[in-house]
Amino acid sequence: MIRKRPVEDQGLYYRPQIDRSPLENPMPRKLHNEDAILRKIRDSCRSSWGRASGQSVSLGIGDDAALFHAKPSHRIILTCDWFLERTHFLRKKHPPDALGWKCLARAVSDVAAMGGAPRCFLLSLALPETHTGRWLDLFLGGLRRASEKFQCALAGGDTTRRNEILINITVLGEVLAGRSVLRSEARANDVLYVSGRLGEAELGLRMVRRNEGAASKKDRLTRKHLYPEPRLALGQWLAKKDVATAMIDLSDGLSTDLSRLCSASAVGALLEKVKIPQVRTPDVALKHGHDPLQLALHGGDDYELLFTVPPRKTRLLPKTFRGVRLTAIGKITPERELRLLEENGRESQFTPGGWDPFRKKL
Amino acid sequence: MIRKRPVEDQGLYYRPQIDRSPLENPMPRKLHNEDAILRKIRDSCRSSWGRASGQSVSLGIGDDAALFHAKPSHRIILTCDWFLERTHFLRKKHPPDALGWKCLARAVSDVAAMGGAPRCFLLSLALPETHTGRWLDLFLGGLRRASEKFQCALAGGDTTRRNEILINITVLGEVLAGRSVLRSEARANDVLYVSGRLGEAELGLRMVRRNEGAASKKDRLTRKHLYPEPRLALGQWLAKKDVATAMIDLSDGLSTDLSRLCSASAVGALLEKVKIPQVRTPDVALKHGHDPLQLALHGGDDYELLFTVPPRKTRLLPKTFRGVRLTAIGKITPERELRLLEENGRESQFTPGGWDPFRKKL
Repeated sequence: MIRKRPVEDQGLYYRPQIDRSPLENPMPRKLHNEDAILRKIRDSCRSSWGRASGQSVSLGIGDDAALFHAKPSHRIILTCDWFLERTHFLRKKHPPDALGWKCLARAVSDVAAMGGAPRCFLLSLALPETHTGRWLDLFLGGLRRASEKFQCALAGGDTTRRNEILINITVLGEVLAGRSVLRSEARANDVLYVSGRLGEAELGLRMVRRNEGAASKKDRLTRKHLYPEPRLALGQWLAKKDVATAMIDLSDGLSTDLSRLCSASAVGALLEKVKIPQVRTPDVALKHGHDPLQLALHGGDDYELLFTVPPRKTRLLPKTFRGVRLTAIGKITPERELRLLEENGRESQFTPGGWDPFRKKL
Repeated sequence: MIRKRPVEDQGLYYRPQIDRSPLENPMPRKLHNEDAILRKIRDSCRSSWGRASGQSVSLGIGDDAALFHAKPSHRIILTCDWFLERTHFLRKKHPPDALGWKCLARAVSDVAAMGGAPRCFLLSLALPETHTGRWLDLFLGGLRRASEKFQCALAGGDTTRRNEILINITVLGEVLAGRSVLRSEARANDVLYVSGRLGEAELGLRMVRRNEGAASKKDRLTRKHLYPEPRLALGQWLAKKDVATAMIDLSDGLSTDLSRLCSASAVGALLEKVKIPQVRTPDVALKHGHDPLQLALHGGDDYELLFTVPPRKTRLLPKTFRGVRLTAIGKITPERELRLLEENGRESQFTPGGWDPFRKKL
């Protein structure tokens, strides 16, 4: 296995020549290898590096680990998210640019929900060898735009080969000590607020699945599904102003995420049906039986913020925050149950209907 | 979708009742769901919580993200690692307890290679529903023991359902500012050292693959493959004493990881064949054609440390560190190539033959 031939240096310092015992059957070798792919990833996200990292990432891709310089006045926020082919996206339907954007956006949303600011992220990527060319370039393009938009620098990661596309994102953020907004501090009589409109991403997913071919990036109905915008500025403002008692981002649907917030706070909630800001469904969507209330209650992937505000502080809240509507949709109750107030004044209990990967095979 | 039936509270605060549009075909629902599995994971690792976290993880599983209180005198180390069925392990061969241990051990090894101490980790776990019972309990048992041994507390994670077992681990560690040992600081004439014996884990993998049924935890030959021990104390000692100029952990094999260290430092290396501490191969292994030198040069998964020491500092190094042998195996050269000095005094170039998932289909 030791060869007396010159080391080639074609983009790689050392070209690998020897194969190690594989766990599966071997197939013909191609030019790509892990170091080359890591370099491609690093180079692609380099433009965002200086601006986004804020000098706090002192060592990035290329060593055993990244180094981060934390602010003493702050606490580190740490979160990770799966983003898997067939579970969270479909290779033939979802444009690689949108996947690059979304994998970071949805992880960053957890930082928004704590009232923090993202700083850097790790990208774990498993790809078929066929996807290490143009597909990867487009994916990295979307990822770079998200990295710049969210000021969250690529700090490292891990790559491997796989028949299916597997993504895992870790985001490290910071929040001023004592200012993080948890799920567990909601109190009875707090007013429940939500940002934006709910059900838009779910409707978008349904459109993407129904339409032929890959989704268009320009379609208004699919845009929120493909390019979600985590509410970073709102989350940080709520934390800084000490307005919200509890907060969660809506990743799995209002009913599911509200139940999580209530469970963590040992409270319940009463939602007012007429107040829930529902997705505007075009006639074509209604025709296909998409009920806007059900979309708003149970649809996932909106990445809006759901938060609770004590009654005496509600006057501090603007009607819109940087163009995003803030809507009071109900209140926290001491009884540990979820109820919905109908238009006719009657109340009914309801249960979480959002996304849970272990509830159904996806 | 809104039901007027009482909310059940069987271990879960709210029991989910409603299904959301899946991306794949549905199959019968079972009792498990994501919140229940997260609770199982949290409860299983709780025993390690207080001791291992050192009070620095102020918020763990159950919120949008974890909160970590960094030491102002230190830098944060951040690393992540794939650990995937069929790529890194085989469901029928590898005991779940060993997988729990190893997934954390291999990620923690990157922290050791920076000279740091692990503090907390995130677990991303995708499982078939059939594996959320006993298999998960055993897996979490191994993970908890690793968490306690490495003083690295579970701080959060993400779970989802999947036909194959997918694991991704993020480890957050700390290292005193200015004391981290990088890959990139090796200088010509530095002496190359390695801890332990090399090729043991590769031989263990081959034994596991060759033997019938699941691997035994007690077999000496497979132990290092199943239960690697990251060299945390050694890495921290080298960093603290400022002895090592560059360091990397041997995850993909000596030849591959040495080439990475050399590439990062823009140097080369000369290895002395007779000095490489090779795996002790029993007769049965030799009979099957396992060459100890090849195992030591190219075998992965040993998680030993490879580090460089300036000649004037080699006297500071003990022969063994806490029972682990430290061996000088060669030196750094200014010429950017990898060479091997044979017993007969001749030198030959060699190329990395370790593990690269993009070099071969696994």
